[in-house]
Amino acid sequence: MSRTAFFISDGTGITAESLGRSLLAQFENVELRMLTKPYIDTLDKARTLVDIITGAAARDGEEPIIIDTIVDESIREVIRSAPGFKIDIFSTFLKPLEKELGTHSSYTVGRTHSIGQDEVYMDRIHSVHFALDNDDGARTHQYNQADVILIGVSRCGKTPTSLYLALQFGIRAANYPLTEDDLDEDGSLKLPRALAQHRHKLFGLTIDPRRLAAIRHERRPNSRYSSLDQCVQEVEQAEGLYRQMHIPYIDTTRFSIEEISTRMIAETGLTRRFSPR
Amino acid sequence: MSRTAFFISDGTGITAESLGRSLLAQFENVELRMLTKPYIDTLDKARTLVDIITGAAARDGEEPIIIDTIVDESIREVIRSAPGFKIDIFSTFLKPLEKELGTHSSYTVGRTHSIGQDEVYMDRIHSVHFALDNDDGARTHQYNQADVILIGVSRCGKTPTSLYLALQFGIRAANYPLTEDDLDEDGSLKLPRALAQHRHKLFGLTIDPRRLAAIRHERRPNSRYSSLDQCVQEVEQAEGLYRQMHIPYIDTTRFSIEEISTRMIAETGLTRRFSPR
Repeated sequence: MSRTAFFISDGTGITAESLGRSLLAQFENVELRMLTKPYIDTLDKARTLVDIITGAAARDGEEPIIIDTIVDESIREVIRSAPGFKIDIFSTFLKPLEKELGTHSSYTVGRTHSIGQDEVYMDRIHSVHFALDNDDGARTHQYNQADVILIGVSRCGKTPTSLYLALQFGIRAANYPLTEDDLDEDGSLKLPRALAQHRHKLFGLTIDPRRLAAIRHERRPNSRYSSLDQCVQEVEQAEGLYRQMHIPYIDTTRFSIEEISTRMIAETGLTRRFSPR
Repeated sequence: MSRTAFFISDGTGITAESLGRSLLAQFENVELRMLTKPYIDTLDKARTLVDIITGAAARDGEEPIIIDTIVDESIREVIRSAPGFKIDIFSTFLKPLEKELGTHSSYTVGRTHSIGQDEVYMDRIHSVHFALDNDDGARTHQYNQADVILIGVSRCGKTPTSLYLALQFGIRAANYPLTEDDLDEDGSLKLPRALAQHRHKLFGLTIDPRRLAAIRHERRPNSRYSSLDQCVQEVEQAEGLYRQMHIPYIDTTRFSIEEISTRMIAETGLTRRFSPR
């Protein structure tokens, strides 16, 4: 029987969940059922949630872990009445911060993930559409506007990474597939012509050939495209090109899209147009 | 002169930044320059960072705010030597959690955003490609596989929202544009035929017509498409359809993509295929 952890917020729940998962990931051997409860922004919703928490405690036979980022004092009070081990993030840190900053906090519900300025929204939309318009080598004439151009074999993770960079950081990421069209006579890849004048913007992705074969198999089962031999060969050629041309690259097998994106930013000095909210 | 806040992590920095921004957003009147420093996973990197922090303190004439989620004790020790007001998230909460859970934490660097299981990765890739394949009404024959179908006028935020749902939660979101092709003789919108049999999966987006005009203006300046009159009319027709057909909807003007997505999930009971890491 496993214990339940609740991540509770008056807003999106992103902060509470992110912190909660970070903390609980440190306990490898503890099995926990994790539930995120966003938009707990009225006393009524808080009371309903207390019933849910009480039910979980009874079913589990153990008190839940409760991690919250609720700002409103009276709502927090209700949550406090639930059975559980409570980590109250805001009351832990806001008081000392108020003292340090010499001012009171505004305690505004849901402030963190509100949209902020129009520019952020526009930049975000613009970057997403840039990624889509410049996906998979569809166009190359906008590369002068790109912040980065991801390259790699088909299905190594270029598209999701481009989109994540656009959504989270407003980075304009194009991507271009490395294919057999660009093979030299000796079987090695040469830099596709469209990319040659943008060498300083290139970033390579690579992937374990077995993982690649599995991903391609979902798309085109039992094809040459998804065969392990073909995947091994393409990956070798791509990595050869990266090394030869000194193009920085990351292995997407080992990392999540968050890690690939943040590592790229850290390594290349790419500038975020805005910050995740 | 503004003070600096550092969000420091041995991993992506997503948790430290998310929590840091949440906390500091409560201090509306305090101007802070916020810097995220991810992948501080060696003593050398930590020492370099201490120099940067010391420089910021000297330049600002005030000590920085330092918020970190570093797990390794010796690296944390180095950061502790920097001048600043420190919020050490892990040491604050891990000890009490260890006691409550009756076990030691594993203190593993970068554990939070590691990729976990292959399935999560595959699900994510699959959902992103589903969103792309089913973007803007491009196809309708896969709607039986969709978890949700977003509808709305051109440029109201359908595509970024679909992609966010795919990337963050593995939700398969198609989207379909409401256009003049579906106007009735009386000038009201009728439900497009492709959507009729999937009514329970529909979710509407709407937007302030002025914001819509501004967004469309970026794409096609001074066109009928981007005129305020046209935008007012289309938005009215769309909202009329939502009300008439009892389709739940959200105004994207007021909310960020995070908020739109998490509110949709909360309102509709959509199931996340995995959790953000």
